[in-house]
Amino acid sequence: MIRQLYDRDSYTYTYLLVCDKTGQAALIDPVKDNVTQYVQLLKELNLKLVYALDTHIHADHITALSVLRKATGCSTLVSSQGKVNCASGGLTNNACLTIGLLSLRAIYTPGHTDDSYSFYLQEGANGYLFTGDTLLIRGTGRTDFQNGSASDLYESLHNKLLQYPDNTIVYPAHDYNGFTQSTIFEEKYFNPRVKIKDKGAFIQFMAELNLPKPKHIEIAVPANQQCGELDV
Amino acid sequence: MIRQLYDRDSYTYTYLLVCDKTGQAALIDPVKDNVTQYVQLLKELNLKLVYALDTHIHADHITALSVLRKATGCSTLVSSQGKVNCASGGLTNNACLTIGLLSLRAIYTPGHTDDSYSFYLQEGANGYLFTGDTLLIRGTGRTDFQNGSASDLYESLHNKLLQYPDNTIVYPAHDYNGFTQSTIFEEKYFNPRVKIKDKGAFIQFMAELNLPKPKHIEIAVPANQQCGELDV
Ligand SMILES: [Fe+2]
Ligand SMILES: [Fe+2]
Repeated sequence: MIRQLYDRDSYTYTYLLVCDKTGQAALIDPVKDNVTQYVQLLKELNLKLVYALDTHIHADHITALSVLRKATGCSTLVSSQGKVNCASGGLTNNACLTIGLLSLRAIYTPGHTDDSYSFYLQEGANGYLFTGDTLLIRGTGRTDFQNGSASDLYESLHNKLLQYPDNTIVYPAHDYNGFTQSTIFEEKYFNPRVKIKDKGAFIQFMAELNLPKPKHIEIAVPANQQCGELDV
Repeated sequence: MIRQLYDRDSYTYTYLLVCDKTGQAALIDPVKDNVTQYVQLLKELNLKLVYALDTHIHADHITALSVLRKATGCSTLVSSQGKVNCASGGLTNNACLTIGLLSLRAIYTPGHTDDSYSFYLQEGANGYLFTGDTLLIRGTGRTDFQNGSASDLYESLHNKLLQYPDNTIVYPAHDYNGFTQSTIFEEKYFNPRVKIKDKGAFIQFMAELNLPKPKHIEIAVPANQQCGELDV
Protein backbone atom coordinates (compact mmCIF):
# COMPACT_ATOMS: atom_id res chain seq x y z
CA MET A 1 0.00 0.00 0.00
CA ILE A 2 1.13 3.52 -0.74
CA ARG A 3 -0.32 6.42 1.24
CA GLN A 4 0.39 9.96 0.08
CA LEU A 5 0.59 12.64 2.78
CA TYR A 6 0.72 16.36 2.22
CA ASP A 7 2.48 19.24 3.97
CA ARG A 8 0.43 22.36 3.31
CA ASP A 9 3.19 24.82 4.21
CA SER A 10 5.82 23.58 1.76
CA TYR A 11 3.57 21.68 -0.69
CA THR A 12 5.63 18.59 0.06
CA TYR A 13 4.33 15.10 -0.61
CA THR A 14 5.48 12.48 1.86
CA TYR A 15 4.91 8.82 1.05
CA LEU A 16 4.16 6.01 3.43
CA LEU A 17 5.05 2.65 1.84
CA VAL A 18 3.59 -0.39 3.53
CA CYS A 19 4.20 -4.09 3.12
CA ASP A 20 0.65 -5.31 3.87
CA LYS A 21 1.82 -8.84 4.66
CA THR A 22 4.40 -7.95 7.34
CA GLY A 23 3.36 -4.48 8.53
CA GLN A 24 6.81 -3.09 7.80
CA ALA A 25 6.81 0.45 6.44
CA ALA A 26 8.99 3.24 5.10
CA LEU A 27 8.52 7.00 4.83
CA ILE A 28 9.94 8.98 1.92
CA ASP A 29 10.56 12.72 2.48
CA PRO A 30 8.89 13.08 5.89
CA VAL A 31 8.49 16.65 7.19
CA LYS A 32 9.54 17.45 10.77
CA ASP A 33 6.42 19.54 11.49
CA ASN A 34 4.23 16.48 10.86
CA VAL A 35 6.02 13.88 12.98
CA THR A 36 3.16 13.60 15.48
CA GLN A 37 0.81 12.76 12.61
CA TYR A 38 3.18 10.11 11.21
CA VAL A 39 3.74 8.44 14.56
CA GLN A 40 0.00 8.35 15.26
CA LEU A 41 -0.78 6.92 11.82
CA LEU A 42 1.92 4.24 12.21
CA LYS A 43 0.39 3.30 15.55
CA GLU A 44 -3.18 3.24 14.24
CA LEU A 45 -2.21 1.07 11.27
CA ASN A 46 -0.05 -1.13 13.51
CA LEU A 47 3.05 -0.60 11.39
CA LYS A 48 6.74 -0.88 12.13
CA LEU A 49 8.74 1.88 10.45
CA VAL A 50 11.97 0.35 9.15
CA TYR A 51 13.22 3.24 6.98
CA ALA A 52 12.91 7.01 6.80
CA LEU A 53 14.41 8.28 3.55
CA ASP A 54 15.08 11.65 1.94
CA THR A 55 15.25 11.99 -1.84
CA HIS A 56 17.74 14.85 -1.31
CA ILE A 57 18.78 17.61 1.08
CA HIS A 58 15.64 19.75 0.92
CA ALA A 59 15.80 23.55 0.88
CA ASP A 60 12.16 24.27 1.69
CA HIS A 61 11.34 22.25 4.79
CA ILE A 62 13.10 20.47 7.64
CA THR A 63 13.35 16.70 7.42
CA ALA A 64 11.84 14.43 10.08
CA LEU A 65 14.61 11.82 9.74
CA SER A 66 16.34 12.40 13.04
CA VAL A 67 13.12 12.69 15.07
CA LEU A 68 11.65 9.59 13.44
CA ARG A 69 14.78 7.58 14.17
CA LYS A 70 14.57 8.58 17.84
CA ALA A 71 10.83 7.93 18.02
CA THR A 72 10.67 4.61 16.17
CA GLY A 73 14.17 3.19 15.96
CA CYS A 74 13.98 3.18 12.16
CA SER A 75 17.04 3.39 9.94
CA THR A 76 17.55 6.72 8.22
CA LEU A 77 19.17 6.83 4.80
CA VAL A 78 20.24 9.82 2.77
CA SER A 79 22.36 10.25 -0.33
CA SER A 80 25.94 9.15 0.12
CA GLN A 81 26.79 12.08 -2.16
CA GLY A 82 25.39 14.62 0.33
CA LYS A 83 28.17 14.51 2.93
CA VAL A 84 25.67 13.94 5.74
CA ASN A 85 27.01 12.10 8.79
CA CYS A 86 23.91 11.99 10.97
CA ALA A 87 22.01 9.21 9.15
CA SER A 88 22.16 5.44 9.68
CA GLY A 89 23.63 5.04 6.23
CA GLY A 90 24.16 6.40 2.74
CA LEU A 91 22.18 5.63 -0.42
CA THR A 92 24.14 4.47 -3.44
CA ASN A 93 22.94 3.99 -7.01
CA ASN A 94 20.96 0.76 -7.43
CA ALA A 95 20.90 0.01 -3.71
CA CYS A 96 17.97 -2.24 -2.84
CA LEU A 97 16.06 -1.56 0.37
CA THR A 98 13.92 -4.25 1.93
CA ILE A 99 10.60 -3.26 3.53
CA GLY A 100 9.04 -6.55 4.57
CA LEU A 101 8.41 -8.31 1.25
CA LEU A 102 8.77 -5.09 -0.77
CA SER A 103 11.94 -4.08 -2.57
CA LEU A 104 12.64 -0.41 -3.06
CA ARG A 105 15.38 0.49 -5.51
CA ALA A 106 17.41 3.69 -5.09
CA ILE A 107 18.33 5.45 -8.33
CA TYR A 108 20.93 8.21 -8.32
CA THR A 109 19.37 11.07 -10.30
CA PRO A 110 21.52 14.18 -9.83
CA GLY A 111 20.66 17.52 -11.41
CA HIS A 112 18.23 19.32 -9.12
CA THR A 113 20.95 18.84 -6.51
CA ASP A 114 24.09 16.74 -6.67
CA ASP A 115 22.67 14.41 -4.00
CA SER A 116 19.25 13.67 -5.56
CA TYR A 117 17.85 10.17 -5.56
CA SER A 118 14.65 8.66 -6.93
CA PHE A 119 13.09 5.41 -5.70
CA TYR A 120 11.37 2.66 -7.67
CA LEU A 121 8.85 0.21 -6.26
CA GLN A 122 7.35 -2.73 -8.12
CA GLU A 123 4.13 -4.18 -6.66
CA GLY A 124 2.73 -6.95 -8.83
CA ALA A 125 2.07 -5.49 -12.28
CA ASN A 126 2.32 -1.90 -11.01
CA GLY A 127 5.47 0.21 -10.95
CA TYR A 128 5.87 3.39 -8.92
CA LEU A 129 8.61 6.01 -9.23
CA PHE A 130 9.16 8.42 -6.35
CA THR A 131 10.94 11.14 -8.25
CA GLY A 132 11.79 13.72 -5.56
CA ASP A 133 12.40 17.10 -7.23
CA THR A 134 14.03 15.49 -10.26
CA LEU A 135 10.80 14.97 -12.19
CA LEU A 136 7.75 16.98 -11.14
CA ILE A 137 4.30 16.76 -12.72
CA ARG A 138 4.58 18.77 -15.95
CA GLY A 139 7.78 20.28 -14.58
CA THR A 140 11.15 19.58 -12.97
CA GLY A 141 13.08 20.82 -9.96
CA ARG A 142 15.31 23.85 -10.46
CA THR A 143 19.08 23.50 -10.89
CA ASP A 144 20.46 26.81 -9.66
CA PHE A 145 21.65 25.94 -6.14
CA GLN A 146 23.04 23.06 -4.04
CA ASN A 147 25.43 22.06 -6.86
CA GLY A 148 22.50 21.70 -9.24
CA SER A 149 23.32 20.96 -12.87
CA ALA A 150 20.94 21.24 -15.82
CA SER A 151 23.22 18.92 -17.76
CA ASP A 152 23.01 16.24 -15.05
CA LEU A 153 19.24 16.76 -14.76
CA TYR A 154 18.83 16.19 -18.50
CA GLU A 155 20.74 12.91 -18.22
CA SER A 156 18.83 11.77 -15.12
CA LEU A 157 15.50 12.46 -16.82
CA HIS A 158 16.15 11.03 -20.26
CA ASN A 159 18.58 8.23 -19.48
CA LYS A 160 17.12 7.09 -16.19
CA LEU A 161 13.56 8.04 -15.18
CA LEU A 162 11.98 8.21 -18.64
CA GLN A 163 13.36 4.76 -19.45
CA TYR A 164 10.74 3.24 -17.14
CA PRO A 165 7.55 1.84 -18.75
CA ASP A 166 4.89 4.33 -19.82
CA ASN A 167 2.39 3.09 -17.25
CA THR A 168 4.74 3.69 -14.29
CA ILE A 169 3.06 5.93 -11.72
CA VAL A 170 5.05 9.10 -10.94
CA TYR A 171 4.92 10.37 -7.34
CA PRO A 172 6.91 13.61 -6.95
CA ALA A 173 8.13 15.35 -3.77
CA HIS A 174 6.11 18.47 -4.52
CA ASP A 175 3.28 19.80 -6.58
CA TYR A 176 2.17 23.40 -6.79
CA ASN A 177 -0.69 22.99 -9.28
CA GLY A 178 -3.19 20.61 -7.72
CA PHE A 179 -1.83 17.35 -9.14
CA THR A 180 -1.14 14.38 -6.89
CA GLN A 181 0.35 11.86 -9.31
CA SER A 182 1.22 11.29 -12.96
CA THR A 183 2.64 8.60 -15.22
CA ILE A 184 5.83 8.29 -17.26
CA PHE A 185 3.63 8.39 -20.38
CA GLU A 186 2.16 11.76 -19.42
CA GLU A 187 5.51 13.29 -18.51
CA LYS A 188 7.15 11.99 -21.67
CA TYR A 189 4.57 13.62 -23.92
CA PHE A 190 3.13 16.56 -21.96
CA ASN A 191 5.88 17.84 -19.66
CA PRO A 192 7.09 21.06 -21.33
CA ARG A 193 10.63 20.66 -19.96
CA VAL A 194 10.92 17.01 -20.94
CA LYS A 195 9.76 17.93 -24.42
CA ILE A 196 12.94 20.01 -24.91
CA LYS A 197 14.87 17.19 -26.58
CA ASP A 198 18.06 19.15 -27.33
CA LYS A 199 20.37 19.11 -24.33
CA GLY A 200 21.87 22.52 -25.07
CA ALA A 201 18.42 24.08 -25.38
CA PHE A 202 17.39 22.48 -22.07
CA ILE A 203 20.47 23.85 -20.30
CA GLN A 204 19.76 27.31 -21.71
CA PHE A 205 16.08 27.09 -20.69
CA MET A 206 17.03 26.18 -17.11
CA ALA A 207 19.67 28.97 -16.97
CA GLU A 208 17.08 31.57 -17.94
CA LEU A 209 14.43 30.67 -15.33
CA ASN A 210 15.58 33.35 -12.85
CA LEU A 211 13.58 31.96 -9.93
CA PRO A 212 13.44 33.70 -6.54
CA LYS A 213 15.53 32.17 -3.75
CA PRO A 214 13.56 29.68 -1.58
CA LYS A 215 12.33 31.36 1.61
CA HIS A 216 13.81 28.97 4.16
CA ILE A 217 16.98 27.74 2.42
CA GLU A 218 19.41 29.26 4.99
CA ILE A 219 17.65 27.41 7.80
CA ALA A 220 16.55 24.25 6.01
CA VAL A 221 19.76 23.17 4.28
CA PRO A 222 22.05 23.27 7.35
CA ALA A 223 19.31 21.68 9.49
CA ASN A 224 18.80 18.92 6.93
CA GLN A 225 22.54 18.27 6.73
CA GLN A 226 22.06 17.34 10.40
CA CYS A 227 19.01 15.12 9.58
CA GLY A 228 16.67 17.80 10.89
CA GLU A 229 18.25 18.40 14.28
CA LEU A 230 17.50 22.02 15.10
CA ASP A 231 20.40 22.77 17.42
CA VAL A 232 22.78 23.27 14.50
CA MET B 1 -8.14 4.51 -12.69
CA ILE B 2 -8.81 7.14 -10.05
CA ARG B 3 -6.91 10.41 -10.14
CA GLN B 4 -7.15 12.76 -7.21
CA LEU B 5 -6.86 16.48 -7.94
CA TYR B 6 -6.50 19.24 -5.39
CA ASP B 7 -7.76 22.81 -5.17
CA ARG B 8 -5.33 24.73 -2.99
CA ASP B 9 -7.69 27.62 -2.24
CA SER B 10 -10.56 25.60 -0.78
CA TYR B 11 -8.69 22.38 0.09
CA THR B 12 -11.14 20.54 -2.16
CA TYR B 13 -10.36 17.14 -3.61
CA THR B 14 -11.75 16.52 -7.07
CA TYR B 15 -11.73 12.99 -8.43
CA LEU B 16 -11.28 11.91 -12.03
CA LEU B 17 -12.69 8.40 -12.52
CA VAL B 18 -11.59 6.64 -15.68
CA CYS B 19 -12.74 3.47 -17.40
CA ASP B 20 -9.38 2.41 -18.84
CA LYS B 21 -10.97 0.11 -21.40
CA THR B 22 -13.29 2.68 -23.03
CA GLY B 23 -11.73 6.05 -22.14
CA GLN B 24 -14.98 7.27 -20.60
CA ALA B 25 -14.55 9.41 -17.50
CA ALA B 26 -16.38 11.25 -14.74
CA LEU B 27 -15.39 14.12 -12.45
CA ILE B 28 -16.64 14.31 -8.87
CA ASP B 29 -16.71 17.77 -7.22
CA PRO B 30 -14.88 19.73 -9.93
CA VAL B 31 -13.93 23.34 -9.03
CA LYS B 32 -14.70 26.12 -11.52
CA ASP B 33 -11.29 27.80 -11.09
CA ASN B 34 -9.58 24.64 -12.35
CA VAL B 35 -11.61 23.93 -15.48
CA THR B 36 -8.71 24.71 -17.83
CA GLN B 37 -6.63 22.10 -16.02
CA TYR B 38 -9.39 19.46 -16.21
CA VAL B 39 -10.05 20.04 -19.92
CA GLN B 40 -6.34 19.84 -20.71
CA LEU B 41 -5.92 16.64 -18.69
CA LEU B 42 -8.93 15.03 -20.38
CA LYS B 43 -7.41 15.92 -23.75
CA GLU B 44 -3.94 14.64 -22.84
CA LEU B 45 -5.34 11.35 -21.54
CA ASN B 46 -7.68 11.09 -24.54
CA LEU B 47 -10.77 10.79 -22.34
CA LYS B 48 -14.43 11.46 -22.97
CA LEU B 49 -16.11 13.07 -19.96
CA VAL B 50 -19.54 11.55 -19.59
CA TYR B 51 -20.48 12.88 -16.13
CA ALA B 52 -19.66 15.82 -13.89
CA LEU B 53 -21.10 15.28 -10.42
CA ASP B 54 -21.37 17.22 -7.19
CA THR B 55 -21.65 15.43 -3.86
CA HIS B 56 -23.70 18.41 -2.60
CA ILE B 57 -24.23 22.14 -2.98
CA HIS B 58 -20.85 23.38 -1.80
CA ALA B 59 -20.49 26.47 0.36
CA ASP B 60 -16.75 27.02 -0.07
CA HIS B 61 -16.06 26.98 -3.80
CA ILE B 62 -17.93 27.35 -7.08
CA THR B 63 -18.71 24.18 -8.99
CA ALA B 64 -17.42 23.58 -12.51
CA LEU B 65 -20.53 21.64 -13.58
CA SER B 66 -22.03 24.19 -15.92
CA VAL B 67 -18.73 25.12 -17.58
CA LEU B 68 -17.76 21.46 -18.02
CA ARG B 69 -21.11 20.66 -19.63
CA LYS B 70 -20.60 23.48 -22.11
CA ALA B 71 -16.98 22.54 -22.77
CA THR B 72 -17.35 18.78 -23.09
CA GLY B 73 -21.05 17.99 -23.57
CA CYS B 74 -21.02 15.83 -20.42
CA SER B 75 -24.12 15.19 -18.34
CA THR B 76 -24.24 17.02 -15.03
CA LEU B 77 -25.95 15.44 -12.07
CA VAL B 78 -26.69 16.92 -8.67
CA SER B 79 -28.85 15.84 -5.77
CA SER B 80 -32.55 15.68 -6.62
CA GLN B 81 -33.07 16.91 -3.04
CA GLY B 82 -31.22 20.19 -3.76
CA LYS B 83 -33.87 21.94 -5.87
CA VAL B 84 -31.36 22.70 -8.60
CA ASN B 85 -32.81 23.08 -12.11
CA CYS B 86 -29.67 23.76 -14.10
CA ALA B 87 -28.25 20.21 -14.23
CA SER B 88 -28.90 17.44 -16.77
CA GLY B 89 -30.56 15.40 -14.05
CA GLY B 90 -31.01 14.63 -10.41
CA LEU B 91 -29.32 11.98 -8.29
CA THR B 92 -31.56 9.62 -6.34
CA ASN B 93 -30.60 7.06 -3.70
CA ASN B 94 -29.12 3.90 -5.23
CA ALA B 95 -28.98 5.37 -8.74
CA CYS B 96 -26.37 3.58 -10.84
CA LEU B 97 -24.24 5.68 -13.20
CA THR B 98 -22.41 4.03 -16.07
CA ILE B 99 -18.94 5.27 -16.99
CA GLY B 100 -17.80 2.94 -19.75
CA LEU B 101 -17.55 -0.44 -17.99
CA LEU B 102 -17.56 1.13 -14.52
CA SER B 103 -20.65 1.40 -12.33
CA LEU B 104 -20.85 4.23 -9.85
CA ARG B 105 -23.54 3.98 -7.22
CA ALA B 106 -25.09 7.12 -5.70
CA ILE B 107 -25.88 6.88 -1.98
CA TYR B 108 -28.08 9.51 -0.35
CA THR B 109 -26.22 10.54 2.82
CA PRO B 110 -27.92 13.64 4.25
CA GLY B 111 -26.66 15.37 7.39
CA HIS B 112 -23.89 17.77 6.40
CA THR B 113 -26.54 19.23 4.07
CA ASP B 114 -29.95 17.84 3.16
CA ASP B 115 -28.75 17.24 -0.41
CA SER B 116 -25.54 15.29 0.34
CA TYR B 117 -24.63 12.21 -1.67
CA SER B 118 -21.74 9.79 -1.52
CA PHE B 119 -20.60 7.57 -4.40
CA TYR B 120 -19.37 4.00 -4.37
CA LEU B 121 -17.15 2.42 -7.02
CA GLN B 122 -16.15 -1.22 -7.17
CA GLU B 123 -13.11 -2.05 -9.30
CA GLY B 124 -12.19 -5.73 -9.12
CA ALA B 125 -11.50 -6.54 -5.47
CA ASN B 126 -11.18 -2.87 -4.52
CA GLY B 127 -14.01 -0.65 -3.26
CA TYR B 128 -13.87 3.13 -3.15
CA LEU B 129 -16.23 5.50 -1.33
CA PHE B 130 -16.32 9.14 -2.35
CA THR B 131 -17.78 10.57 0.82
CA GLY B 132 -18.15 14.29 0.05
CA ASP B 133 -18.36 16.20 3.35
CA THR B 134 -20.34 13.42 5.04
CA LEU B 135 -17.28 11.49 6.20
CA LEU B 136 -13.94 13.30 6.32
CA ILE B 137 -10.62 11.77 7.37
CA ARG B 138 -10.76 11.63 11.18
CA GLY B 139 -13.67 14.10 11.00
CA THR B 140 -17.03 14.88 9.43
CA GLY B 141 -18.63 17.84 7.72
CA ARG B 142 -20.45 20.34 9.91
CA THR B 143 -24.25 20.32 10.23
CA ASP B 144 -25.09 23.92 11.11
CA PHE B 145 -26.25 25.33 7.76
CA GLN B 146 -27.93 24.33 4.46
CA ASN B 147 -30.53 22.28 6.35
CA GLY B 148 -27.81 20.25 7.99
CA SER B 149 -28.85 17.75 10.64
CA ALA B 150 -26.61 16.00 13.14
CA SER B 151 -29.27 13.32 13.55
CA ASP B 152 -29.31 12.62 9.78
CA LEU B 153 -25.50 12.68 9.69
CA TYR B 154 -25.34 10.08 12.46
CA GLU B 155 -27.68 7.81 10.47
CA SER B 156 -25.80 8.35 7.19
CA LEU B 157 -22.48 7.51 8.84
CA HIS B 158 -23.48 4.51 10.94
CA ASN B 159 -26.24 2.98 8.82
CA LYS B 160 -24.82 3.66 5.38
CA LEU B 161 -21.13 4.51 4.95
CA LEU B 162 -19.68 2.51 7.85
CA GLN B 163 -21.55 -0.57 6.64
CA TYR B 164 -19.07 -0.90 3.77
CA PRO B 165 -16.19 -3.37 4.21
CA ASP B 166 -13.25 -2.30 6.36
CA ASN B 167 -10.83 -2.23 3.44
CA THR B 168 -12.95 0.22 1.41
CA ILE B 169 -10.87 3.26 0.47
CA VAL B 170 -12.36 6.56 1.66
CA TYR B 171 -11.90 9.59 -0.62
CA PRO B 172 -13.40 12.75 0.95
CA ALA B 173 -14.22 16.11 -0.67
CA HIS B 174 -11.82 17.97 1.60
CA ASP B 175 -8.92 17.53 3.91
CA TYR B 176 -7.33 20.19 6.05
CA ASN B 177 -4.66 18.07 7.78
CA GLY B 178 -2.47 16.64 5.04
CA PHE B 179 -4.31 13.37 4.47
CA THR B 180 -5.31 12.29 0.97
CA GLN B 181 -7.25 9.08 1.64
CA SER B 182 -8.33 6.72 4.39
CA THR B 183 -10.23 3.46 4.83
CA ILE B 184 -13.51 2.50 6.49
CA PHE B 185 -11.45 0.54 9.03
CA GLU B 186 -9.49 3.62 10.05
CA GLU B 187 -12.55 5.85 10.30
CA LYS B 188 -14.49 3.25 12.25
CA TYR B 189 -11.81 2.97 14.91
CA PHE B 190 -9.90 6.28 14.88
CA ASN B 191 -12.35 8.99 13.80
CA PRO B 192 -13.16 10.87 17.02
CA ARG B 193 -16.66 11.79 15.82
CA VAL B 194 -17.50 8.30 14.61
CA LYS B 195 -16.37 6.96 17.97
CA ILE B 196 -19.25 8.82 19.66
CA LYS B 197 -21.61 5.85 19.55
CA ASP B 198 -24.53 7.47 21.40
CA LYS B 199 -26.70 9.42 18.98
CA GLY B 200 -27.75 12.02 21.56
CA ALA B 201 -24.14 12.64 22.55
CA PHE B 202 -23.20 13.02 18.87
CA ILE B 203 -25.98 15.57 18.29
CA GLN B 204 -24.86 17.51 21.35
CA PHE B 205 -21.21 17.39 20.24
CA MET B 206 -22.11 18.78 16.80
CA ALA B 207 -24.33 21.49 18.35
CA GLU B 208 -21.45 22.73 20.48
CA LEU B 209 -18.85 23.07 17.72
CA ASN B 210 -19.51 26.81 17.19
CA LEU B 211 -17.60 27.04 13.93
CA PRO B 212 -17.06 30.32 12.08
CA LYS B 213 -19.21 30.92 9.00
CA PRO B 214 -17.53 29.82 5.74
CA LYS B 215 -15.92 32.78 3.97
CA HIS B 216 -17.62 32.46 0.60
CA ILE B 217 -20.99 30.95 1.47
CA GLU B 218 -23.08 33.95 0.28
CA ILE B 219 -21.46 33.77 -3.16
CA ALA B 220 -20.89 30.02 -3.47
CA VAL B 221 -24.28 28.61 -2.51
CA PRO B 222 -26.42 30.71 -4.90
CA ALA B 223 -23.84 30.24 -7.68
CA ASN B 224 -23.83 26.49 -7.12
CA GLN B 225 -27.62 26.35 -7.14
CA GLN B 226 -27.10 27.55 -10.74
CA CYS B 227 -24.44 24.86 -11.42
CA GLY B 228 -21.68 27.46 -11.10
CA GLU B 229 -23.02 30.06 -13.54
CA LEU B 230 -21.77 33.39 -12.21
CA ASP B 231 -24.43 35.71 -13.62
CA VAL B 232 -26.86 34.81 -10.85
FE1 LIG C 1 14.38 20.22 -3.53
FE1 LIG D 1 -19.73 21.11 2.09
